[in-house]
This record gives sequence, C-alpha cells and structure tokens, in this order.
Amino acid sequence: MCGIVGVFGSDRAGELAYQGLYQLQHRGQDSAGIVTADGEHWQERRGLGLLRDAVDFAELRGPDGTSAIGHVRYRTAGEVSTQETQPFVAETRHGRIAVAHNGNFPMAAAGRQLLMARGAPVITHSDTEVAVHFIAQAKGVRLTDAIKVAFAALDGAYAMLVMAPGTMVGFRDPYGFRPLFWGRRGKACLFASETCALTHLGVEEVHEVRPGTGVIADADGVREEVFAEYRKRRLCAFEKIYISRPDSVLDGADVSQDRYALGFRLAEEFPADADIVIPVLDSGQWAALGYAERSGIPYRPAMNRNHYVDRTFIKPEESLRDLAVAMKHSITRAWVRGQRVVLVDDSIIRAVTMKRTIRLIRSAGAKEIHVRVSSPPVVSPCFYGVDMRTKRELYAAEHGVQGVREYLGADSLEYLSREGMLAAFGDDAGASHCVACFTGEYPTPVPKF
Amino acid sequence: MCGIVGVFGSDRAGELAYQGLYQLQHRGQDSAGIVTADGEHWQERRGLGLLRDAVDFAELRGPDGTSAIGHVRYRTAGEVSTQETQPFVAETRHGRIAVAHNGNFPMAAAGRQLLMARGAPVITHSDTEVAVHFIAQAKGVRLTDAIKVAFAALDGAYAMLVMAPGTMVGFRDPYGFRPLFWGRRGKACLFASETCALTHLGVEEVHEVRPGTGVIADADGVREEVFAEYRKRRLCAFEKIYISRPDSVLDGADVSQDRYALGFRLAEEFPADADIVIPVLDSGQWAALGYAERSGIPYRPAMNRNHYVDRTFIKPEESLRDLAVAMKHSITRAWVRGQRVVLVDDSIIRAVTMKRTIRLIRSAGAKEIHVRVSSPPVVSPCFYGVDMRTKRELYAAEHGVQGVREYLGADSLEYLSREGMLAAFGDDAGASHCVACFTGEYPTPVPKF
Amino acid sequence: MCGIVGVFGSDRAGELAYQGLYQLQHRGQDSAGIVTADGEHWQERRGLGLLRDAVDFAELRGPDGTSAIGHVRYRTAGEVSTQETQPFVAETRHGRIAVAHNGNFPMAAAGRQLLMARGAPVITHSDTEVAVHFIAQAKGVRLTDAIKVAFAALDGAYAMLVMAPGTMVGFRDPYGFRPLFWGRRGKACLFASETCALTHLGVEEVHEVRPGTGVIADADGVREEVFAEYRKRRLCAFEKIYISRPDSVLDGADVSQDRYALGFRLAEEFPADADIVIPVLDSGQWAALGYAERSGIPYRPAMNRNHYVDRTFIKPEESLRDLAVAMKHSITRAWVRGQRVVLVDDSIIRAVTMKRTIRLIRSAGAKEIHVRVSSPPVVSPCFYGVDMRTKRELYAAEHGVQGVREYLGADSLEYLSREGMLAAFGDDAGASHCVACFTGEYPTPVPKF
Amino acid sequence: MCGIVGVFGSDRAGELAYQGLYQLQHRGQDSAGIVTADGEHWQERRGLGLLRDAVDFAELRGPDGTSAIGHVRYRTAGEVSTQETQPFVAETRHGRIAVAHNGNFPMAAAGRQLLMARGAPVITHSDTEVAVHFIAQAKGVRLTDAIKVAFAALDGAYAMLVMAPGTMVGFRDPYGFRPLFWGRRGKACLFASETCALTHLGVEEVHEVRPGTGVIADADGVREEVFAEYRKRRLCAFEKIYISRPDSVLDGADVSQDRYALGFRLAEEFPADADIVIPVLDSGQWAALGYAERSGIPYRPAMNRNHYVDRTFIKPEESLRDLAVAMKHSITRAWVRGQRVVLVDDSIIRAVTMKRTIRLIRSAGAKEIHVRVSSPPVVSPCFYGVDMRTKRELYAAEHGVQGVREYLGADSLEYLSREGMLAAFGDDAGASHCVACFTGEYPTPVPKF
Repeated sequence: MCGIVGVFGSDRAGELAYQGLYQLQHRGQDSAGIVTADGEHWQERRGLGLLRDAVDFAELRGPDGTSAIGHVRYRTAGEVSTQETQPFVAETRHGRIAVAHNGNFPMAAAGRQLLMARGAPVITHSDTEVAVHFIAQAKGVRLTDAIKVAFAALDGAYAMLVMAPGTMVGFRDPYGFRPLFWGRRGKACLFASETCALTHLGVEEVHEVRPGTGVIADADGVREEVFAEYRKRRLCAFEKIYISRPDSVLDGADVSQDRYALGFRLAEEFPADADIVIPVLDSGQWAALGYAERSGIPYRPAMNRNHYVDRTFIKPEESLRDLAVAMKHSITRAWVRGQRVVLVDDSIIRAVTMKRTIRLIRSAGAKEIHVRVSSPPVVSPCFYGVDMRTKRELYAAEHGVQGVREYLGADSLEYLSREGMLAAFGDDAGASHCVACFTGEYPTPVPKF
Repeated sequence: MCGIVGVFGSDRAGELAYQGLYQLQHRGQDSAGIVTADGEHWQERRGLGLLRDAVDFAELRGPDGTSAIGHVRYRTAGEVSTQETQPFVAETRHGRIAVAHNGNFPMAAAGRQLLMARGAPVITHSDTEVAVHFIAQAKGVRLTDAIKVAFAALDGAYAMLVMAPGTMVGFRDPYGFRPLFWGRRGKACLFASETCALTHLGVEEVHEVRPGTGVIADADGVREEVFAEYRKRRLCAFEKIYISRPDSVLDGADVSQDRYALGFRLAEEFPADADIVIPVLDSGQWAALGYAERSGIPYRPAMNRNHYVDRTFIKPEESLRDLAVAMKHSITRAWVRGQRVVLVDDSIIRAVTMKRTIRLIRSAGAKEIHVRVSSPPVVSPCFYGVDMRTKRELYAAEHGVQGVREYLGADSLEYLSREGMLAAFGDDAGASHCVACFTGEYPTPVPKF
Repeated sequence: MCGIVGVFGSDRAGELAYQGLYQLQHRGQDSAGIVTADGEHWQERRGLGLLRDAVDFAELRGPDGTSAIGHVRYRTAGEVSTQETQPFVAETRHGRIAVAHNGNFPMAAAGRQLLMARGAPVITHSDTEVAVHFIAQAKGVRLTDAIKVAFAALDGAYAMLVMAPGTMVGFRDPYGFRPLFWGRRGKACLFASETCALTHLGVEEVHEVRPGTGVIADADGVREEVFAEYRKRRLCAFEKIYISRPDSVLDGADVSQDRYALGFRLAEEFPADADIVIPVLDSGQWAALGYAERSGIPYRPAMNRNHYVDRTFIKPEESLRDLAVAMKHSITRAWVRGQRVVLVDDSIIRAVTMKRTIRLIRSAGAKEIHVRVSSPPVVSPCFYGVDMRTKRELYAAEHGVQGVREYLGADSLEYLSREGMLAAFGDDAGASHCVACFTGEYPTPVPKF
Repeated sequence: MCGIVGVFGSDRAGELAYQGLYQLQHRGQDSAGIVTADGEHWQERRGLGLLRDAVDFAELRGPDGTSAIGHVRYRTAGEVSTQETQPFVAETRHGRIAVAHNGNFPMAAAGRQLLMARGAPVITHSDTEVAVHFIAQAKGVRLTDAIKVAFAALDGAYAMLVMAPGTMVGFRDPYGFRPLFWGRRGKACLFASETCALTHLGVEEVHEVRPGTGVIADADGVREEVFAEYRKRRLCAFEKIYISRPDSVLDGADVSQDRYALGFRLAEEFPADADIVIPVLDSGQWAALGYAERSGIPYRPAMNRNHYVDRTFIKPEESLRDLAVAMKHSITRAWVRGQRVVLVDDSIIRAVTMKRTIRLIRSAGAKEIHVRVSSPPVVSPCFYGVDMRTKRELYAAEHGVQGVREYLGADSLEYLSREGMLAAFGDDAGASHCVACFTGEYPTPVPKF
C-alpha cells in the first residue's frame, strides 16, 4: 500500500503534486517525498511521517518545476530508516530518472540474487530499487523500450511513474493489480493512484492507465503504448473492500457503492435476527448501510472513535496497547443496551482488534452480537503489495472460521462468499479481480510460504 | 467549552484523571493540565496543545497522588499564551486549593473592576482567576462556606472542581448551564464534565451534580449540600446539539438519541422532496439519520473528511484556508450526481464553512440542495461559555434566514423551530434549557452587546 | 537568576526587546516572554525553553508596539509548569501593567500570608506575583507612588521593570543586589539587566539604574526619582564571579577584568608549585589567565567541552549522568601528561562536578592537581536570587574546606580570601558588595534555615 | 568531512558505537546512522540532524549486536534529503555488507558514467554508492580481495569501514588523506576517525590504520594486510589546522600542540607591534596562544560566542544573517579599547565572517587590527573531502592576499608560509601532507575546475 502521483507540463507542478498526494495520505503514512524537475534543475524533498511533516509545502508553492512525482509510503514490518523514502532518483544509461512505485515483486529475492551475481549491489530494502536496476540495465534506444525490457523479466504488481527530462511515463503490470489513473488539466497531464486525487486537482475526465499499458506524456502530447503482453485483468479485490477511499472510482463504480453492494449481498447470504446494525468505524460504514437497508434492520453508527488517540500513544509498551484501544473507541450505550446487534466489518485479519471491539459492545449491554464480514476469510498471504505477508498473521488461515468465532466470542460469525463478493463487484465470472488471499491461487509465481 | 475531571481517594488518581480527561479532549484542544495531591505533596503538570503533548502520561502512572483534578481548555479569541492553563493552584486563607472551571461569568468585567478597586491585581485573562479571588476573599470557617459566599456574588455559568488537602468539591451554578457528573469507583469518588469519561473509568452508577448543589468528597465519604438558592434549570441546549460526545448522557438520554430526535422532528416540520440525506460530517450524523428515517429518504454519508489535514496547515495564511478546506473534505460523487440532496447539519454559526460545503456538493453534480438545520437560528451571543461571543459573528442574526440562504446558495434552507427542539428534548414546556442564543432572553444579567 | 529588558518609545520596540533578551539568555533558559504595547493594543508572547523556541521572532519584526518588556527565566527547583512565565500582565487599580522581575524576596512567605489573610489568592509560585499584589494594593495617585508604597513593605532583591500605557519604570532595591542599566538609542529609552545587551542594541552611553532609584520614561522624557530610603550598596558578588557575561560592565569595570583580577590575587595568596594552569571551561577562563600571568605558569586550556551534549541527554536517568559528563568533557592529554596542574574555577557549589573533572584530569596523566578557587567558600544559602537555596547543597558549609579537598581527591585546595576578593573588586573596605553567601551575614531579614 | 566509527566483537557494540560517534559529532551534523549486526540479525538506525536526534540511544543500550558501525555526515551543498544517510547496507555477491565512508572520489563522475554504461543505476548523490558498486562488482573469493580490486580502480580519498557477517574491515587510501585509527578494548576491536573517540571508549593503545592498508577483525583476531600499492603519505593538512578535535592525536602529536606550534612559528615569521593577541573563537585558540607566548604579547580571549544562537536562526533569510552574526559574537571591550590587536585565526576561506569580526572589534575601540593566519592562503579547491569545492568560494584564490586584506579592512594581514606550516608539523621536507589546497598540486588526477 503506497500512493503515487505525477504532474507533467504545469508550471505549478510541485504544488499540484503536493495537493494530489495529500489526497492519497490514507495509502501510506510512514514517509513521503516529491521530486520536481525543471529541465536540468531537479529538486528532491523527502522526509519521514505524514506529508505535511515530511515536505514543506511553502517551498513548493510558486514555480518549482514543470513536472513532479510524489510518493507516500506504508512501511511494512522489517523495513527501517530513511533510505527507502521514495521517489528514487537514479542516474542511468538512459539519463536521470525519478521513480515512484506502488506494488510488490513477489520474486524480487531472485532478482536481487541475479543482480548481485552480476555485481550490482542492492542498497535499500525496497523492491523498487530492484526495478530501478532492471530499467538501468535494460538496453534500448528509448527509455520506454528499456522499461518494457526490464519488466518483461519482473513478474509482479506494479503501478509506476517514471519521470525523465522532458517526459513522464505511467504504467501498470499486465494484471493491473494496483490502480493507476491519469487525466488532463489544461495542458498538463496528471497521474494518481486513485481518482479522488485527480478529481481534487480539477481533472474533468479521468482515464485508467490500462493494465500492461504505458501512458507517455511529453512535448508531443499524451499517448498510450502497449508495454507488456496481454494477461487477464486482476485488480486487487482489497482495493474495493478496504484500501481505496470511498469517493474513488474503480471499474466505473464509486468504491462506496461497491462496499454498499457487498453489505447488501451479505444481508442476503447471511441474514440475522437482530435489532440494529453497527458498522465497525469508518471502514465498515458503507457495507453496514447496505446490510441494514437490505435487511430492514436499523443502521446505528453507535461506535465512536476518539480522534485524539494517535499512534504515538499506542507504541511504547504492550501494556499500554489495551488502554489505548479502550481510550480510542467508545459505544453509545443507549442504542445497544439489551439489543441484538449485527456488527459489520469489511475484513478480519489479525482478529485481536475485533475481539476487543466485541468485548466493548458486550459490556455496553448488547444481548447478542452477530458478526458479518463483507469479504471472504483471508487464508493466504498477499505478495502484491498489501500488508499481510505471512500465513501466521492470518487468524482464519490458522484456525478456520469456527476458530475465529470462538476466539472472538461472537454469537455468530459469517463471511461473505467469494461468489457473493464478485457478484457485488459485477464480476460474476470472477474474471477480473485478484482474489488470491481468499483462495491461495496466485496469478503469478510466488515464493514458497 | 472546556472539560474538567476530578478523582478523589484513589492511589492511581493521576492516571485516572489522565484517562478521564482524554475522553473530554473534544471539549478543548488548546491546553491541558493535571494537578495531583498526596497530602502536602502536590504536583502540577500543564502544557499547551493536546493532552498527550501537554502532560506526560508516563509520569502519572504509578502512585502519584490520592486525588487529582484535570482540565482541557478551548482557547477563545483574544486570549494568549501559557498563563491561562488550568487547573489553577492558589494559596488562600482557606489553605491551598486547585481549581478547574468550565463556564463563563458574563459580568466578570465588573468583578475585575471590583477586585482592582480593592487592590487585588488580576493577572490572567481568565474569568476563572476572578472566581478564585472571590473564593479567597470570602470569609467562612469551611472552604465550602467560602465557595457559597463567593458564588452568591458571581452570577454566571460554572461547573467547577475545587481540590484542597483532604477534600474535593464539585459544584454547579443554580441554573446548571454547564454539565457535571460524579460517581463511585470502589472507594474513589470521580467527577467529570460528561458521563462518557466516568463510564470509561468504570463508574457503574453515574449521578448528576445537581444545579446549585455541591458534591463534597472527603474522609467521611461523599455528601451533597445546597450551595445556592433555587433557580429554574437551564442546561445549555448546545450541549445536546453539538458539544457533548454522542455517547454521553444528559437528562437521562444519550446525546445521540437527542440528536436523532432533533432530526426526526426536523423531517416532520420541514420535509423535502429529495433523493438522499447527507450529514455534514460527524456532527450532523445522528440528526441526518433521524431525518432520513422519518422521511424515508435514504441516508448516504457521502461527505468524507481527510483526517490528515490538521489545524497547523490551516493557520499560516488566509490564502491557504480555502485550499485547506478543499483538501479536507471530499464528496463521494456516485451518490450525489443528479440527485436532490438534503444536507443536514446541527447548526450554522459563521456560515462560511457551510457555503464551501454546498459549493463542493454542487460541483459533485447535485441537482438540488436543501439545507436542514437541526436547531433554530442563532441570533444572540452566548455569555455562558460557548464560543459565539459577538453578534457580528452570527450570520443569521445579521442577515436573517433568507439572507443566510442566499449567502449559502442553497435551494432551500430550514431551521428546526424552538418548539420542535424542545419537544425533541422532551422539554415541551421549555422549562429546563438555556436557549438564550436562539431567543436573546438571558436567564442572568449580561453585558450590553 | 533571570534577565530582563525594556524598550520605550521605539517603533521597533518588540524587535529590539527580542534582540536584547537574546544577549541575556545566559541568565535563564527555562522560559521566555515578551509583552509589547502600542497604546491600548497589547500583545503577549511567552513560552517554555530558550527565547528562540518560546517567542517567534518573525512576529516581532515590523511595527508591533512602541514599548516592550521581556524576561528570561531560570527555573529553580520546585517550580513547575507554564504559569510562572513572565512578564506578568495585570489589571490593577492603576490600570494595566506588565511586570518583569529579576530577584527574590526572602520574606515573601510572610507577604503571602498577609495577602491570604486579606483574602487575596496567590496563584503562581513566583515571588513576583506577591510584588504585583503589593503594587495593586498600594494606594497612590500615580503608579510610581504605588510602587514606592509597595516596596517599602517588601524587603528583598529586585531589579524590576513595570510597563504601563505611556510609561515605563525601571527600579532597583535600595541595596542594589541585582543589576539594572539603561540608556538612550535615538529617542528610545532602553533597559537591561546587563550592559552587554544595551551595547548590542547600539546604546552609546550606558547608565546604572541606581539602587533605591527609579528611572521613569514617558512622553516627557526620562527622569530619575528616589524610590526608597538610602541603604549601603550591596551588589551581589556572584554577578562578578560567575553570573554576568564577561563583556558586561559592573561598577565601571568589565566583568572579565574583575575575573582576571580575582585570579591574579589568588596567585598571590595561594601560589602553587606547578607546570601548567588549566581553566575549568569557559567560566574559569579569565581567573585562570590572571593566575597564570601572575604566577608565570603557562596557561593551557586543555579541557574541552563537547557542545553537542545537551541537557536533554542528561535528564533521563541517574545512571546516564556519569556517561553524559564523560561525553561532554575531554582533556587534551599531551599538555597534561606527567605535569603538575593548577586547576582554576570560579566557585565550587555542589562539588560533584569538580570531583568528576579531577578524576578526568588525573586519568589523563596529571602528576599533581592543585585546585584554586577564585572566590571564598560558599557557606550560607542565598536569599537574593542565586540558586543556592539550602545549606545542604553547599558542600563547604557542611564539610569544611578540608572535607571538600578530601572529597575532591585534590592534592591541594585553596579558596581566595574574602579580603582578596574585595580587593580584586577594588572594594577593599567591603562596603559595596553582598557577600552573605560567604559570611552568613545578610543585609536584610531572612527566614530561618 | 564525515566521521566514522566501528566496533567488532563486543556484546555492547551498538552502545559503544553511539558513544564513540558522539565524540566525532564535530565532523558532521547533518545526519547520523548506526548499523548493528548480530549474526544474521541486523538493525539499521538512521536519521537527520545530530546523533542525539537521529538515533535513539535507549534502543542501543543492552545487547543489540556484536558488531556495529556508525557515521556522522556533513552535508555539502547540493545534496538533499534523507537517502544519503550512511552507513549504507548493501546486498552483494559477497553477501550483505554495511559501509561507512569518510572521504571523496574526485573522479567519481567518471565512475558513475562507467557504472551507467554497464547498466547499473546510481540512486543517491553520494560518492559512497559508487564505491559500493565497485565492491559489489569486483570479483574475488574473499571480501577483502573484492575491496582491493574495487579500490585499485578508484583513485581518491577514503577512510572506510566495511562490516560483513563475522568480520569488519577498516582501510585507507594509499595516500592516507583522511585519518582512521583502531585499537583493542578487551576482546573487542574498535575503529574511529579520530583517536579522541577511541580514548573516550577506554582503548589503551591506539594504532593508525596505515595508508594503503586494511585492518581486518574477525573470529581469528585482528590482522593487517596491504590493500594497495605504496604511495607517498599525504595526510590532509587541514585535519591538523582545523578539522580534528584538539585532543586527538595525529602523527604522534596532539592536534592542539600542532596548532600551538603553528601559532608559534607564525609569530616568528610575522611578528606584530601590538598590545594583545585575540583568538578567533575556539578554533583559533591554540594558535593564538602559541603566537602570544612566542611574541610576548598578552593572550586575551576577548571574543565571546553566544551559544544560544543556533543554525536554525541563521537560515531563514539573508537579511537575518547579519543580525545573527551580531547576536552570536561579542567583544569584551575593556581589553580592546585603544589597543593594537593581533587577531589570530586558523584559516580564511570565504572571508565574509572575518570581515564582520574585524568590524566588530574595530567598533569595540581597537586602534589597529593585524590579522595573522596560522596556515597559508587557500587557493585551490579540495577534492578529498573538505568542503571547499569551487575556486569561486576561495577569496584568496580570486583576489590575492592584498585583495583579501583590503576586503577585510585589516591594518595588516599575513599568512603562515607553507614551509613554516610544515616545520610546525615536524615535516620539513613536506613529504607527508597533502597541501594541494595551498599549492594546486594534486597527488591524484582531479577533474578540471
């Protein structure tokens, strides 16, 4: 989970990139960076934490470049320190390039071995560096040819922006695991991981960067080019379930509509004899509303979040974590007392937070708690950029649905079926989404786990 | 708008005060402080900003005192700097006391003049200091007598905690403008501005500190005492409309229920021919749900807040403020496009934010926008602690409802009637709420404005 | 130990006050504040820590007031939190005043009792608040009369600035314990605790605010007035020994010259058979140079300070404190190895730092270490504003000079005699300095200790 | 100018590295990092700013690794952002390595071209990355062989530490431009840029890592190996003149002794008819003392630094820079008034600071100012790691000594001769120091400038 943004051909490129990136902050809060280019003059700004702390907006206002790319990063466990902060800027045989990447290469370890065997060091812990090496090594008269050559050898999930003097290229892997969009704003060409950022920037007509395709902006305008051989489309189902912002559009539908449909379908598959439907905070909101409206059970957002409890507070010690959760969430008791509650969440990964939530609702006086999850059980790790890396983390994978229910202490627990999910997406044939984490069937080679 | 908390008779007094205060953070984010007392040993901790930044929680864990009071402050315009940070600790003829105050004395200016004439300086800009002076000057064998004497001369709104060696007193003005509650936790006696803090701390049975009454905790236990002559109860209606947390209880009802009822009643008074109901963010949520369910128009929380835009960003320049608002809010367009929208908010004070919101929804494709406000128009300033001090700030007061509608650019605009509001509160006779800001009729003397 | 500054009658008052205060930062690093006044418009800025962190210089540039006073504070143990941050602004029967104070009232406790008995509360822990009360209570047609009345009742050490609309008053107690100076800069009248600040601000001719005298600046110009009855002058000897900056002038001599003379005299009283003279860091520098030049022993500043070790690092745990000292200081061994060392410091209070220094020099290979202190042993607490409050802290008072020598592990230890010190100051008769900490004879009543 | 430190074979490796690095903070304040290794478990910690802010000491206490290397960086103009923070960790065909580098490769640009032509990207702006590439590409059964191969192709200045599982290698270029030392502490082997760090860590016997030589620590102990063919020794003269800490040892002499000797020699070459000798702050202190003692003119450290003016304050605007300098430095006037002053500094690079200093001393009343510089004029840029990169920055190179004197407004200006400098170093033949910046004769190929 990362977010990327690109602006080509605007004299406010840096400022627009900053504003666009702000809209993608939910995709990563661990570091942020923006690289602007004005002919030969490049400026790099990166830092740790939220965009507002990492990059000084004041410096980007006014003419700072005619193109810019930006990146917000979600740090996965094990990575450390400052060096992974993207965008990367590299001097290559194709000239200077800046690279911003959202995705993951499941076989990057093999790529690293190959690079090392050839004598190239890999300095950061980031898969992106491997990709940069492949681009730099690839022979080709034009940068776009080098990119094609490089990624022919790198199976995986990537939505990527490459900025070079006088051009910007946005491209996606042939499966289209991770989203990427583009559009025009006056003479400028803009790219972003989600449509919400482009809409915010005033782009009227938003286009998808199609899987396996590159969108190239340069002095001649904007054109599309096929970058990779055809594959079946595999957009990550979790983008719709959880990752993308509700006001972003994927496959022509607002994500909040997909989530509503998931909840609607869930109510059909697994009705409950209950008095109220409670969403698990913001992320379960739309599914809960769909569930409520389909079932006729009143929707009651009775769970509140205390916005002043931040991650800092949670960090110090395990012993404080329980306290932090209790301080963070509260239940409006009047709605819950003596009621049979349907609790709707979008997914259950580690189960421990849901367990605490159920305890909280129980202590607020609920008579029964029926958990309904608007996606199937996650049973396999993701190798395409979502932070659920090892099977051990996945409670359902280890203990089964019944095990989860017992652990949670819920009166009932049901997950939406895979078919139901795909139907909600309007993809009954299951032909266009990656659902590997629900099935264990991966579209590409993955390492043993 | 401030929040106060007190803990008497627990060996974890400081820690409990901190946790309770955390639950009141929504009542004030400008400074925070906690004073703990263990016999003669007192510890004062105060700082600017949020509680988590102002007071180091680590220092409060473990035995730090057997009683403690805390305060979070909402800084009103004109006040500056560090000196107003409460609780105040004062050496007085009644011994050392710590004071935490939520409220306002409309005639404090006269009090200040009186003090100055008597030769007492007033150092801070806080009304609370005036109150401390009055307590210190009052003669009385017991501290509680001094408090009674002092406040007999100080008309106004106050929910106050006074801590002294071996005792803690919580009391409210005879109108009960501002809320205060207490309850037991084992042997300890706890106080807080809202029930949500007491519930969070594990208090089973929560009691109101009744208007004009003091609750006194000391070695002999807890007892109530009449502190002021009887007045008609005047709980601030805005506590129910906007200030208190939805999971707090006022007059026996959860605040979220009151808000639901306000919206329900609003739909009866002012129905709309529309397709969807959109709440203005969190604060309008329950009223919007009530409106939706009464009217049968679907509830669609299509307005999103970007939680990463903080106040810091807003501050620097006026020119950035528009940008900040745009960066902060977004609309899920799919629900809105081509629709007739009912937009429900709890109140409209300065109108400028609502104007921007309407522009945003309009640009998302709404066909019509009907604004429904779940409280009457605010036409008079508040002198009892809510931050709407001058008439100039109140758009409806200056321009009338029609003027507001035109300014907003809404297709229609309706406010809940005063009768409707009181009925929603179950107070049809209007006998127990302060509605001065809607009517201009103040229960106490107020300065000219 | 605090520093104060005042500017009257300049349209850059705030900026000048800031710059002047910066030069007084060595007198207090715990908080800082500046209050500017432009007729009825007053601005207060205060904060914790160094001036550069506490007050935003950018806000003070440009026209911000025509008069200003500032204060830097050294926090003595026991005081806490934000409320003591000066200058204080008070509304009084004499109108609004701002007060900045350097000094201490040994009998303030009695003053507090008096105030409390009269019904005035004392909110901060600062003696200065007591003084403000006395001013406010004093009757008098003019502010200056009120000040005279107030301080007639308050024995103690004070150099104080009072700003009121249209006037600024700087005055000192009749003994002149703490320094205060003034001078003109164009039409403006400036005040500061030390001459270095006035010189920095471009004041050509610097005058002392004479003991017991007030310097009053207003629309009529600047004039002096007697504020208190005549007393023998008692300037704090420690100002010359340690507190003031070496480039400040006291009694007509640069402080660095006084220190050189102290060291010179010390060499006459207590010569040593040694190879090199090492100063204890910056504060012992001038005395060591005087010692070296009188004795003919080479001066070798062989002790280095690592400027990157800050107080933060020292704080966390006792166990880290030794480490911090070792990290902070180092010895240039080549000069020390096999040598007989004279180590010169200005004073020894707690002795623990000197003990560590001697260990460090010993381990660098010194053959002998002879400690020479350029002031007499401190045997009595200070009640006039220097942070040595209790006898327990004073090693020499508890254990005698021989006890100190043994504790330090020095080969010899000698302190400059009282006579020698006064002679170095050119005050052979001992008529004009406060030496109470060396003798226990206090010029004013002090509490029992 | 960077500082590096290494610890091999201690169960407190991380803690020792931190403490050692603290002693090298004067070599770089822009970023800091420490990498610890415990078999396969590596921990990387890096950050911007001072070590105390960049790396959390608390995390390094206790067992965190059995070997560690650290780096503090001085950022030269043009470099930006977080990615250059060393140590670098790279996966290579020789396994994982961590690299910390002090120095510079004048021909790195060519190396970059070579790498790019071969298809390797260069991501950071740091020469060190180029070196890592060369190590990674080099073929060799053992890591040390790869290092030898790599650096045979990379002329330049390097003192480098390479950590790999089970081993640590410290080595220097064959000229020995930059210093590196090692020593034992119990069973551990420690490395550092300066002896002061090793002494601080308790190393009894400190050895030089000899030019062209590697010191290899592994399970078999510590051994030396020749890494490069013999060259004439060329230790950077500026290490002795300015860079190294006065208590560090170079070529068997304490640096403060070298500086004293420079000043002593300077007095012989260029006496002055004057009354006092003033050092330019700390860095000119020892040379000034040498000058004073040789000439018999009294040494008077009359120039003071205000330690509270930090770099932050200087940054914002050019217009504030003059103010910052004035706020930072002051002169003790009594010593200066009416006197003929010899002002001694170690070097003059940009001349602007010295110009301001002279103005300050002049305005303090000095009658004459004779500047004496304890090193020759710098006329050529440095390509070996000292921050004087372009000729344009070097005032003497552009305008000659006479031009400098006029610019400064000094009554006379003299620089120590090259011969005098070398004699002071005991290197009369000039056989063992790099003096290229004084002569323009570079020991290695350098780019055109």
